[in-house]
Amino acid sequence: MTPTRTNSPVLVVGTGLLGSSVGLGLRRLGVDVLLSDASPVALGLAADYGAGRIAPAKSIATAAPEDVPQIVVVCVPPDVAGEVVVSQLEAWPDAIVTDVTSVKVAPLEHVIDAGADLSRYVGSHPMAGRETGGPLAGRADLFTGRPWVVASNEKTTVFGLQEVEGLALDLGSSVVSMTAEEHDDAVALISHVPQLLSTAMAERLLEDETDATALAGGGLRDVTRIAASDPTLWSQILAANGPRVARILRLLADDIVDLAEALEDMNQPGARRKVAEHMLAGNEGVARIPGKHGSRRTFTNVTVMVDDRPGQLARLFHEIGEAGINVEELDIEHSPGANIGLATIGVLPEVRQKLLDELDARGWKVAQ
Amino acid sequence: MTPTRTNSPVLVVGTGLLGSSVGLGLRRLGVDVLLSDASPVALGLAADYGAGRIAPAKSIATAAPEDVPQIVVVCVPPDVAGEVVVSQLEAWPDAIVTDVTSVKVAPLEHVIDAGADLSRYVGSHPMAGRETGGPLAGRADLFTGRPWVVASNEKTTVFGLQEVEGLALDLGSSVVSMTAEEHDDAVALISHVPQLLSTAMAERLLEDETDATALAGGGLRDVTRIAASDPTLWSQILAANGPRVARILRLLADDIVDLAEALEDMNQPGARRKVAEHMLAGNEGVARIPGKHGSRRTFTNVTVMVDDRPGQLARLFHEIGEAGINVEELDIEHSPGANIGLATIGVLPEVRQKLLDELDARGWKVAQ
Repeated sequence: MTPTRTNSPVLVVGTGLLGSSVGLGLRRLGVDVLLSDASPVALGLAADYGAGRIAPAKSIATAAPEDVPQIVVVCVPPDVAGEVVVSQLEAWPDAIVTDVTSVKVAPLEHVIDAGADLSRYVGSHPMAGRETGGPLAGRADLFTGRPWVVASNEKTTVFGLQEVEGLALDLGSSVVSMTAEEHDDAVALISHVPQLLSTAMAERLLEDETDATALAGGGLRDVTRIAASDPTLWSQILAANGPRVARILRLLADDIVDLAEALEDMNQPGARRKVAEHMLAGNEGVARIPGKHGSRRTFTNVTVMVDDRPGQLARLFHEIGEAGINVEELDIEHSPGANIGLATIGVLPEVRQKLLDELDARGWKVAQ
Repeated sequence: MTPTRTNSPVLVVGTGLLGSSVGLGLRRLGVDVLLSDASPVALGLAADYGAGRIAPAKSIATAAPEDVPQIVVVCVPPDVAGEVVVSQLEAWPDAIVTDVTSVKVAPLEHVIDAGADLSRYVGSHPMAGRETGGPLAGRADLFTGRPWVVASNEKTTVFGLQEVEGLALDLGSSVVSMTAEEHDDAVALISHVPQLLSTAMAERLLEDETDATALAGGGLRDVTRIAASDPTLWSQILAANGPRVARILRLLADDIVDLAEALEDMNQPGARRKVAEHMLAGNEGVARIPGKHGSRRTFTNVTVMVDDRPGQLARLFHEIGEAGINVEELDIEHSPGANIGLATIGVLPEVRQKLLDELDARGWKVAQ
């Protein structure tokens, strides 16, 4: 619990995957959670599931004091998010209202156009999800360790910002501050375009006459996994971020046509170089994605052959230590059929050559 | 061991990842493996590692009888595979020669153009690999359970085919028979095009000014994982299959431009429908990829809420059994923060409705 949370309840509007997860996560912290949903079935399931209690009142006019929320979290589909945010701002004139929609410009514009109280609206977007939806897909720890974008606007008050950031922190997320425009640019690149590429690749498989998919390996599976995503939800998301996504798709199509032209005649001058340059740029691009632990730091690996004699590994690490080299990562394996074991040592790139020299000087066999 | 293997040795030419894995796998079966490689360092590592013994002779002219191979497995990079196959056919006039290159038309044409003995060449391609290369990346079980394409030609003899199929079976693979053309069409679709799409997506990340990659989720990671592949190797592979890959890339670019046009103005008639149709086609396409166990059969899931009272699960499965419904898959979870557990039951699609009715009749709460 952060100091920003008082005893007044949090109202979650929309009890699908995200709303149910917000409710479960806050309930675990002992927060009083009110639930509301257009579907009585979903609402009932979420309440039974433990995401909170069904909200007794729809607005301050009919609400008992203990049922008046301090913050409203709108977790409805993208195409209705804007109007629900506006209606909640009107229903609860003292509450801070946020939404968790995966686009941020469209709901903001809706609030502005409706002339609602912009100073109490703070858009946000937790970068978390699952392949399944509905209340029972909710998890109290869905947001743990994930970035949660908070998009303030020019009217946002310090209190409003604190409320929404506090919500994200309570649920275990790390807060990332962006404008709505910055957010929509970012998700176009890292979420919306990858979705459509995966879709376009999977679509090609429909024309497979040779039963090629029987040969499919991990590469194709990885590239097409998210092609199984929900068309309805994604049509709404993409409808709300179309031009930003389209701009990047055009650039991608240009690169793909550029590759196709080279591949149509690999004997033409520069064709091989062009393909290699795209591959290299791809290597650089993927290296920009933070690692699982959010670190961009990558280690370089050196693999050493170790005889199956006692004390060999101990000797290896003693000698690496002597050389003043720090081992960042280590993987030891002994392949079936092999005479010897392999020690793969991860070190910082700048010490790689020193490690190679030291190992060589001490007579260790290193993989080239 | 299949009956096709005699006591005469298997010669592995090229001791990188694949050659070293072939050697280790055959050594584990007690087969006599000869190793050869243009690089003395790689050759020495592979021999030390246990992939086989260094071949004493380069051709039948100087070889002792026990060093004459019955089958030669060429495991060299794509751009030299054809000529190495030809030189091996000439060096060992009685041996069957195969290669494991990831394209099959180019080496075949090379053998034909060189006027070498086509009847002793059988191209093949094990659908297996790792992200790392070199002799020490080799694994005796690399091919276990993977498809191994064997591409015979019009001159291929029954004996030659048996030899290469026997090799694949000895190494634990399942044999898939295709012509060289069918193979190259198939890998263009399921391997080469996904590689370039992943590369093109990763390349876009180089233009990220908003530090968007800090928000990256599993989707982007999956789509771009293979963008880290080796540019040199891939330039060679793509150079040998260019036109087939280019044809599919052009179709993909058309779909991507089609999506971009719709997204540039989602208010134009049919724009949303177009996006949804691409998403749906992607859903269908990805469903064509066989599951981990090679099965295309997919189950439909029904999630049941189960109280935390003893005997509840037992009662649930007793009643499903009573109803004569077979549970194909089962996943039980209890989310932190939740009042109740969830039993997700996978059944054949055709019995889904019956299961829903039976559960409803017995008062179970099912997720909608």
